[in-house]
Amino acid sequence: MSEGEFDLIARIRRRVPARDDVALGIGDDCALLQPPPGLQLAVTMDTLNAGVHFPPETAPADIGWKALAVNLSDLAAMGAQPAWCTLSLTLPQADEAFVDAFCDGFFALAQQHGIALVGGDTTRGPLSVGIAAHGFVEPGMALRRDGARVGDEVWVSGTLGDAAGALRQWQERKGGQSGLLQAKGHSDPLFDSLFARLDRPTPRVALGRALRGLATACIDVSDGLLADFAHICRASGVGADIDTEALPASAALRAAFDGDARRVLQATGGDDYELCFTAPPAQRDALQAVAARLALPLTCIGVIVEGGGVTCDGIGPDARGYQHFA
Amino acid sequence: MSEGEFDLIARIRRRVPARDDVALGIGDDCALLQPPPGLQLAVTMDTLNAGVHFPPETAPADIGWKALAVNLSDLAAMGAQPAWCTLSLTLPQADEAFVDAFCDGFFALAQQHGIALVGGDTTRGPLSVGIAAHGFVEPGMALRRDGARVGDEVWVSGTLGDAAGALRQWQERKGGQSGLLQAKGHSDPLFDSLFARLDRPTPRVALGRALRGLATACIDVSDGLLADFAHICRASGVGADIDTEALPASAALRAAFDGDARRVLQATGGDDYELCFTAPPAQRDALQAVAARLALPLTCIGVIVEGGGVTCDGIGPDARGYQHFA
Repeated sequence: MSEGEFDLIARIRRRVPARDDVALGIGDDCALLQPPPGLQLAVTMDTLNAGVHFPPETAPADIGWKALAVNLSDLAAMGAQPAWCTLSLTLPQADEAFVDAFCDGFFALAQQHGIALVGGDTTRGPLSVGIAAHGFVEPGMALRRDGARVGDEVWVSGTLGDAAGALRQWQERKGGQSGLLQAKGHSDPLFDSLFARLDRPTPRVALGRALRGLATACIDVSDGLLADFAHICRASGVGADIDTEALPASAALRAAFDGDARRVLQATGGDDYELCFTAPPAQRDALQAVAARLALPLTCIGVIVEGGGVTCDGIGPDARGYQHFA
Repeated sequence: MSEGEFDLIARIRRRVPARDDVALGIGDDCALLQPPPGLQLAVTMDTLNAGVHFPPETAPADIGWKALAVNLSDLAAMGAQPAWCTLSLTLPQADEAFVDAFCDGFFALAQQHGIALVGGDTTRGPLSVGIAAHGFVEPGMALRRDGARVGDEVWVSGTLGDAAGALRQWQERKGGQSGLLQAKGHSDPLFDSLFARLDRPTPRVALGRALRGLATACIDVSDGLLADFAHICRASGVGADIDTEALPASAALRAAFDGDARRVLQATGGDDYELCFTAPPAQRDALQAVAARLALPLTCIGVIVEGGGVTCDGIGPDARGYQHFA
């Protein structure tokens, strides 16, 4: 590990909890790690840039949480158990207060999932956070995108559209217009609950683990349900019909957005980091048992069909056009 | 793997060579990799930002080469065999020509070392390249920073100061002053050979592998010999005395810079990516045999002593001051 332009690594290093399989952590040219015998290594890497992936006003602690969350979500979508990560933190200047707050959010989430930070670098430049995350999964048990079969049902965890709803409200407030919040007379707690979904998404790691052997394909909803599920259809060589009336919505989203506006957020809004997956109808009871055990609603929202592409309520992507689901 | 703001991944994906231990490469939420039984995983992650780690004018192919090279150099410094990497490429806009040229440099080096690109993302933002690299090493055989012992000799590979010399010349040309090159009447080939060291550094992977069992500690020279070797002294709890007359210089550097100016570049200039390591005197013959086999000069430049810190020609860091080795 190169220590880059300035050294904030000592501040980060003292926050790192131990793991038995980390033979050498932060402080050398590389970390040395001992993978468990017989398991596959699942590896993902996602970067978040200020002003692109999060509003520049986002609290440093939320940036730390979210940057790790989006990577844990990728491990969750594969059914992998989180183990190790590396962090590349780019800052305009050596800002110790930022780093401390960033670490508050980062390590709060890291501890929940027992993932160890083992290396990376700090560099100078426009605010950006890159993370590579590593997890383990049994060979043949990973939840890939290419396993969906005609007749499978399409499921999604939790609720959809909250993060996009928060972003919409933030943009309207920022624009100096009378925001939806004020226009609809909502109290702040509702607004806060939507923002919590945007700033501190919950990676569905336990769900991903539980879906091994039940789901035939899986993806996390980062770019929007329709866009993300289209990847499963392409990889699996199938189509899907989604019932937009069935898309699960939070009470906060229902209160803040009516009818069509809400459904657009649910179908196309990104950043929810719920898992969307397919399973044969024979797994319904098993899936409901998982939902009960994890206290996490799972909702059947459609079915896998022949052909390609994702139709909504029987209407294909070309017919429904951009004015509705842009 | 999230596909980020725009999708240039297809262009990159078709350039990726196969590896048997990659069960699933680019195109899903994670890559699935099969680590070899019994080996440790060496992991590093370094990010290069435009204008900070390379001049903005750098050719895209050189950026691709160098971003991978600095990570391979970290694997080399641990004695690890390169295996897999992930790439996070941030670009101001979806620039296909840039990506194609970037890939030319990136994959030219990747192929030399048999390292497979298995995932990552492309995002929108100021030009930045983050890479996480993975390699294998036998437990107990990695070249760490903490193994240097009093009486060990200090060695360095290749030549030092070339990259810093190129940067110095580039800065002088850019500043509109009569550059050193013109002032000293040098021909372009000399200038080019220095720039090749800056733009296309050679990670010393084969040397790192050969040093397992011979070297007691090792680091790659990224920030400058004295700064980097100080890490070995700190980690090992020892001091070092470096003989600046012994520092190896290329013919190009000798032609471009005289005496003291050259020695400062060699002792403090970064970006050479040579390996600096320690070994007991009993290993001299074995090291010269490695040098001959790899056709890569290895030079003894000093000795490990009691105490802490790096002295040059018997003068400590405080006494020599910043005017000389800044």
